[in-house]
Amino acid sequence: MKQDPSGRPLQALDTPALCLDVERLEHNIAQMAAFCQRHPANLRPHCKTHKCPTIAWMQIKAGAIGVTCAKLGEAEIMAQAGIEDILIANQIVGETKLARLVGLATSCHLTVAVDDLSNAGAISQAAEQAGAQLSALVEVDIGMGRCGVAPGPPAVRLAQQVDALPSLRFAGLQGYEGHAVMVPDPEARRQAAEEAIERLSATRDAIEATGLEVGILSGGGTGTYETTGAHPAMNELQAGSYATMDGRYASLGLPFACALTIQAQVISVPTSERAIIDAGIKTMTGEFGLPTVLSPAGWRITHLSEEHATLQRDGGGALALGERISLLPSHGCTTINLHDAYQVICDGRLEAVWPIAARGCVR
Amino acid sequence: MKQDPSGRPLQALDTPALCLDVERLEHNIAQMAAFCQRHPANLRPHCKTHKCPTIAWMQIKAGAIGVTCAKLGEAEIMAQAGIEDILIANQIVGETKLARLVGLATSCHLTVAVDDLSNAGAISQAAEQAGAQLSALVEVDIGMGRCGVAPGPPAVRLAQQVDALPSLRFAGLQGYEGHAVMVPDPEARRQAAEEAIERLSATRDAIEATGLEVGILSGGGTGTYETTGAHPAMNELQAGSYATMDGRYASLGLPFACALTIQAQVISVPTSERAIIDAGIKTMTGEFGLPTVLSPAGWRITHLSEEHATLQRDGGGALALGERISLLPSHGCTTINLHDAYQVICDGRLEAVWPIAARGCVR
Repeated sequence: MKQDPSGRPLQALDTPALCLDVERLEHNIAQMAAFCQRHPANLRPHCKTHKCPTIAWMQIKAGAIGVTCAKLGEAEIMAQAGIEDILIANQIVGETKLARLVGLATSCHLTVAVDDLSNAGAISQAAEQAGAQLSALVEVDIGMGRCGVAPGPPAVRLAQQVDALPSLRFAGLQGYEGHAVMVPDPEARRQAAEEAIERLSATRDAIEATGLEVGILSGGGTGTYETTGAHPAMNELQAGSYATMDGRYASLGLPFACALTIQAQVISVPTSERAIIDAGIKTMTGEFGLPTVLSPAGWRITHLSEEHATLQRDGGGALALGERISLLPSHGCTTINLHDAYQVICDGRLEAVWPIAARGCVR
Repeated sequence: MKQDPSGRPLQALDTPALCLDVERLEHNIAQMAAFCQRHPANLRPHCKTHKCPTIAWMQIKAGAIGVTCAKLGEAEIMAQAGIEDILIANQIVGETKLARLVGLATSCHLTVAVDDLSNAGAISQAAEQAGAQLSALVEVDIGMGRCGVAPGPPAVRLAQQVDALPSLRFAGLQGYEGHAVMVPDPEARRQAAEEAIERLSATRDAIEATGLEVGILSGGGTGTYETTGAHPAMNELQAGSYATMDGRYASLGLPFACALTIQAQVISVPTSERAIIDAGIKTMTGEFGLPTVLSPAGWRITHLSEEHATLQRDGGGALALGERISLLPSHGCTTINLHDAYQVICDGRLEAVWPIAARGCVR
């Protein structure tokens, strides 16, 4: 730890705190930017993980062509921060939201996913009434079984129908190989992603065979970026978690560093084998498994309750009250969404506090 | 649904929305208040579930003697809302937090849990320097295996040591039978709670045998309130979830109504057997199981992703895009903590919006 006076040392931060190592973040952003420079796909990183315009701008300055959002509310936050090219990779439905959608489209270049003609028609109508320009990607279900039309004829038909709408521009296709991103074996993961992207690519060919140009093919996640981003048909990559990473993605052996930690504190030492810290499931989520104790060595989490985690001794030395515990969250996306700000750490000291401006933007 | 113009109908709210049925909430508050009037324990409801001063005040006006909080930050929010008697049922450790703790004690009657002499000594010293009055409950581990000293001699010794501190008043004991609150079988649950409270009661007797008065015995959760709140030794009941309830507590057959729902909307209908809604794990948590579809009938959730839930048809009629889905969250405490406000519903219409002022207060 440097002794310069630039900020409070990590160990002096109040706990629990969501900390972001800015050098690791920069490394990850540079790493993915370099990958995309070597491959056909442009990077349009997903903001649902970091929810932070500061990080989105770092990605854009490193070469990203814009951002991807999961929710309209996230897109509004990114547009307010000056980001000009936004994809909402999700279906936006209902009168209230369509009014916001077309309103947003007057302040940025906005693209939205559609998988239903009535929805696309309603968007076109709202855009026409508002005098707004909007683009649409037809979402194709390439194996995940969530949203999207089936590949092949149903997607071809919807693309043609969307293209015929007066005020919604058909811009291309979206397919997310979400079923592939977490396959543990690298070769099986590559193959699952490859098969999924082939469905998207074949659908593009079928649409172009009708004379309709498919500008954009967008998809990909952090676990499959190497396959999806290298596929010659793909020209937009939506990976998001690579920037901060988390315990679950770290298990895949990707070339990105874990930039995110939770700093917690021992608040009770009931026995020499058990310690309780001040961070529970309201600080770090558990749906992808328990967080990992990074330091001190020789302790592991055995249980999360709302505001406590129970640590069990696993060969480590004694823990004292007030001792700092550094943890790797298992799921960055949902953990970040519990916090209002990142404590940005450089070289072991607090360098800045970045608001997680899109936290809680579920609408 | 009444046709009066008092507010937007539930069906017109934008989604996803965390809705709170105010009549059910009032029923629950009245029900628990009536129980406590018939029994020795005073009600000091836990605010970690609702995190909302408006609800805390409703509970106090119905007879609660104050509130219980899990975190210092929650207690600060409640004090700012004018609540005068607050228990932080948790260990508050470290210089930064002790400064806040004694600062808070100048604006309300504040009690804090302790399970360690060095921590209690540090609180006493900070209180002395700040000229603040603070009380402490010695936390006893009555079977949950989280924080707390062991019942019997260790608790007696700590009580005597705390009592000897110059600026921290020993006010009694806290024991939380957290291991008992969710035992499915009512008789087994009653027995587990009874045994736990007996440990607390016996510890009180052992302390009083030394000549030291134990003013308060505090504990209890929504699942065990009938046992804990009726035990002659207990004089404070900390139950919290009863006010809003959730799917997991509802499974215990308690006399409280589920006041909390998530209103969501169908955003994609890929097949007649599957629909996707706009509420996922960032809207309603899953650690206690999947949310329950309340309406329409014949559909159930099979998967939660971050911003989507997948609904599988289970005998129901066809779902259309934009159709409203009403859901019962499985875990109120963590679900509420994802939202900034309750949409307060009366008789099917929006009556008010209540800020969840203590959302995210993990420090």
